[in-house]
Amino acid sequence: MTIPLQVIKILKIGLSLKRGLFIRKRVMITFAVAEIQELIRKKRYRDLKESISEFLPADVVQILRSLDTSERLLIFRLLPKDLAALVFAELGPEEKRELLDIFTEEQIRKILEEMDPDDRTELFDELPAIIVKKLLRLLSPPDREIAYDLMKYPEHSAGRIMTPEFVDIKTHITAEEAIQHIRRTGPDKETIYYAYIIDANRKLLGITSLKDLLIADPQIKVEDIMQKEVISVQTLDDQEDIARIIQRYNLLAVPVVDSEHRLVGIITVDDIIDVIEEEDTEDFHRMAAMEAPADSYLNTGFFTMLFKRFPWLLALLVTSTLTSNILEHYAPVMQMVVALAFFIPMLCDTGGNAGTQASTIVIRGLAVGDISLKDTLKILTRESLTGITLGATLGIFGVIRAMLVQNSDPFLWVTVGVALAATVLAGNVAGALLPLLAKIVKIDPAVMAGPFITTIVDLTSLFIYFELAKRILMPH
Amino acid sequence: MTIPLQVIKILKIGLSLKRGLFIRKRVMITFAVAEIQELIRKKRYRDLKESISEFLPADVVQILRSLDTSERLLIFRLLPKDLAALVFAELGPEEKRELLDIFTEEQIRKILEEMDPDDRTELFDELPAIIVKKLLRLLSPPDREIAYDLMKYPEHSAGRIMTPEFVDIKTHITAEEAIQHIRRTGPDKETIYYAYIIDANRKLLGITSLKDLLIADPQIKVEDIMQKEVISVQTLDDQEDIARIIQRYNLLAVPVVDSEHRLVGIITVDDIIDVIEEEDTEDFHRMAAMEAPADSYLNTGFFTMLFKRFPWLLALLVTSTLTSNILEHYAPVMQMVVALAFFIPMLCDTGGNAGTQASTIVIRGLAVGDISLKDTLKILTRESLTGITLGATLGIFGVIRAMLVQNSDPFLWVTVGVALAATVLAGNVAGALLPLLAKIVKIDPAVMAGPFITTIVDLTSLFIYFELAKRILMPH
Repeated sequence: MTIPLQVIKILKIGLSLKRGLFIRKRVMITFAVAEIQELIRKKRYRDLKESISEFLPADVVQILRSLDTSERLLIFRLLPKDLAALVFAELGPEEKRELLDIFTEEQIRKILEEMDPDDRTELFDELPAIIVKKLLRLLSPPDREIAYDLMKYPEHSAGRIMTPEFVDIKTHITAEEAIQHIRRTGPDKETIYYAYIIDANRKLLGITSLKDLLIADPQIKVEDIMQKEVISVQTLDDQEDIARIIQRYNLLAVPVVDSEHRLVGIITVDDIIDVIEEEDTEDFHRMAAMEAPADSYLNTGFFTMLFKRFPWLLALLVTSTLTSNILEHYAPVMQMVVALAFFIPMLCDTGGNAGTQASTIVIRGLAVGDISLKDTLKILTRESLTGITLGATLGIFGVIRAMLVQNSDPFLWVTVGVALAATVLAGNVAGALLPLLAKIVKIDPAVMAGPFITTIVDLTSLFIYFELAKRILMPH
Repeated sequence: MTIPLQVIKILKIGLSLKRGLFIRKRVMITFAVAEIQELIRKKRYRDLKESISEFLPADVVQILRSLDTSERLLIFRLLPKDLAALVFAELGPEEKRELLDIFTEEQIRKILEEMDPDDRTELFDELPAIIVKKLLRLLSPPDREIAYDLMKYPEHSAGRIMTPEFVDIKTHITAEEAIQHIRRTGPDKETIYYAYIIDANRKLLGITSLKDLLIADPQIKVEDIMQKEVISVQTLDDQEDIARIIQRYNLLAVPVVDSEHRLVGIITVDDIIDVIEEEDTEDFHRMAAMEAPADSYLNTGFFTMLFKRFPWLLALLVTSTLTSNILEHYAPVMQMVVALAFFIPMLCDTGGNAGTQASTIVIRGLAVGDISLKDTLKILTRESLTGITLGATLGIFGVIRAMLVQNSDPFLWVTVGVALAATVLAGNVAGALLPLLAKIVKIDPAVMAGPFITTIVDLTSLFIYFELAKRILMPH
């Protein structure tokens, strides 16, 4: 399909108005792709180079996704090398691997060289060890040393996601000198909007923002305007905690210090947004009883995805077969009053739903830091009361439903109502308690969510139901 | 409890080492609170004022939460007014209301005056209309006009969360002049790290970062260094989309333009992090079949929380009673082969679990923009295949479990196995399909998650199970 460039431009303006943000974006990308394919077809490589260089990295990523492999390679050859490195860093794990397979060694070397150290660590984390080893050999000795340094920190720790490219200044210089220093060294830094003040041993003494430096009297010493109470994190701190710190204090970056309080890196807010998304995505999947894939849905292979799901389903199925044991045990009761069986799914569902709600409240509360283990007693008291209230109310509906069964006995009504109330209470308390227990024994609380709670609550509720039936219903 | 200040200081240093980030923070806050209470008790108000002024807003919030109402009021009187406004803005809705009730009119006026326009909009959103009306009267006429302007945009739109406090410059000035302009006007701006270039009609022409201005030749015109392809959003764009834009392009702020492309505000990354957390929290709760409370768990009243949960539980219970109808219909079948009942919870659970997994994958994929409606066919094909694979494998385990029932018939084994496979397939397809359908009809896809899917799948699976039983099992 070829569209004359003028038409493209007119359509571009017309269509970009008055639409949802992402529809406008998609239209823009669609036309950019058409334009680029047109330029490739006409072999107008100089125009192509100029055109592609004007896009932002995230847009180039979108454009690349619409091109075929040979076109993609061509674009990468034409991209200015700093843009190429940024674009490469923004790609998904699978897309990166695909390109590494077809790039020449020289191309890989150039891109690696231009990448930020934190983006390089991320890349190495995504690749098998054997490829990482090869790539490390392509780095210059100083870059290789930085890469080794960062990779020695545990996954998801501050050290692993930080970059050593920050602005550091000495105490005795003036605001004016600090600004000059930033001008000179700024281009290579991850952010220039904070300058970190360190002593001769690289210990972090204070922090100042570029805003404060600009607004201050140019002759004032930085030590007189720096903030001494610095919010910093340690190399081994967890990335989820760091995200909460950045959010709580509205920071653009946070300094990372080692155990001697020496400044070793910074973590910037744009990386932290990715951490928040990644951690929430992990929780969403865990709470649905599966592992989160490392890549997007469409970039994750069929079998990879299957293996994120199957083991959890199987474990839950095995646990769930215990319900069959309970029911087999109570078969004589059911045989006598078959109507008892009518309410099994309703009981199990409702208990599971109450448990899913309670566990979600607690898991999310723990994740965002609204609640902590010291609130355990308060939460359990409150969720017990909630369980009783919800159970009592829903129990009445259970009774009403049981009354609708043909020729049913008032003792069945009571059994269903009481069992439903007890199930809701049990589900609610289990839902609130289990994530807290998990937190105590250092398991991810997100595992103790809907599917797991439902399976546990099923066992409890069936037991309660049939014991009640035996005691209330059977004697009559 | 009084602790000598020296002891506090020593303990502070000792305990702050080698602990988790939030434990260190909590220790710090605990000691700060002890110190402040000590100063209050000794009526050393000058020291208190000095001490409290040194904390960051988020820390003051934490400290306030540990104090009683009269202490809290005292601290607010002693806080410098800019800090007081920042602290107030960081509080939860309930905490804000509590303070507004006890503040004098003059105190409220001072705090409102100092607050950023976007924080003010947020405050007004959290309060009942009658209180907002009173507060608006306390604002100066220009501030009141800004407040009205922002509040006329719909909730969750760019206009509603933006602030008009940005740096704008004209095209013809030099980089040096632009920096001087930023120095002068910077203190009142939400961010000074981007300067927006506008024409005489306030139309957005380009953007430049303070970094680029600093690094550029001081005499160069800003129009020669500005980036003309500006990532901007429109006043009516949804905050969730804006969050994705900021994340995708790694921005510190995004400009907001009206339908005439005039620059009317900016949205900064710190507010966007809150949007991401808020939107994810909403999804977590919706996916557990409840509404997310506006405030933290501990600040949400018992009955408020109950009413976020009860209507959903009741709706699901009512839907779930349909399972009783199905079972009542098949009572004769169950009466003949009571062992059929043994597998009801296992069937329902497993179908629900597969559905929960599939729906979570699709809901989260839609939320982060990994998948969109145009992928519908691909998703359904893939999830059908996944459902068949998972169903076939899990079905075998179902057969094995059925074989363990005493005196059971091979026809029961087949019924259970086939029903389990069919249920998993149905659950998987429903889980993938329903969130997509919701998106098409503009319902939040997050509603089509675990609890809802489980209830729907129960109906399907019981129907399949007993129909199979009737056809396979009964004739023998």
